[in-house]
Amino acid sequence: MDLAFEKLDGLIPGVVQDQRTGEVLMLGYLNQDALTLTQQTGEIHFYSRSRQKLWKKGETSGHVLRVKEVRLDCDADALLFLVDPIGPGVCHKGYRSCFFRLLERDGKASVIAARAFAPEHVYGNQGKS
Amino acid sequence: MDLAFEKLDGLIPGVVQDQRTGEVLMLGYLNQDALTLTQQTGEIHFYSRSRQKLWKKGETSGHVLRVKEVRLDCDADALLFLVDPIGPGVCHKGYRSCFFRLLERDGKASVIAARAFAPEHVYGNQGKS
Repeated sequence: MDLAFEKLDGLIPGVVQDQRTGEVLMLGYLNQDALTLTQQTGEIHFYSRSRQKLWKKGETSGHVLRVKEVRLDCDADALLFLVDPIGPGVCHKGYRSCFFRLLERDGKASVIAARAFAPEHVYGNQGKS
Repeated sequence: MDLAFEKLDGLIPGVVQDQRTGEVLMLGYLNQDALTLTQQTGEIHFYSRSRQKLWKKGETSGHVLRVKEVRLDCDADALLFLVDPIGPGVCHKGYRSCFFRLLERDGKASVIAARAFAPEHVYGNQGKS
């Protein structure tokens, strides 16, 4: 199966969904190496566009994402990972899901979730993962 | 609220989730105009990278996506739409979700969902929407 990495300069978006609750937790990007590592280890690896390198989700925090199932879309240009998330949350801002804000019609964003953990205790000053 | 459209040359990925069932239905891309139209009409509009134009999801099929809630992620570079999908499915191949295939560890893709409708009756030869 050839995935359409070429559409985004070598990357493909991966949606992460909690297999148990159905909650969409985050969206990240994978290159071929990240996908290979993810499939080999059973834990999600992404490619960071800002840092231009591979990273394992949870490498700093311990909040890894254990892959239960990988789904592929009709055009082979998007992936959906059904996961068992380890730890209280995936978001570097301290929430269970990165989608913790509502975007209102007037363009304002409002937080609709409770903090799940204190990010400064988890990440320190090392960046985010 | 400024969304990070600049990270993908003016586009931002939008994950579409069925608000009732929690099923992830598809991933599409929006530019600012698509987001504005989506918020004005309450029905999802995308920007087609292949056709290089705005399109309303369901403009051919009638399978529109009624937006119940829009969520924004921590980096403001991804959106999550909770929707009420009209019709039997969103995928131009005839499935309820575009993520109808399992990606196996050996790279093979296998269909794991049943066809929900006959795409040739819905789309004819007009392309896909």
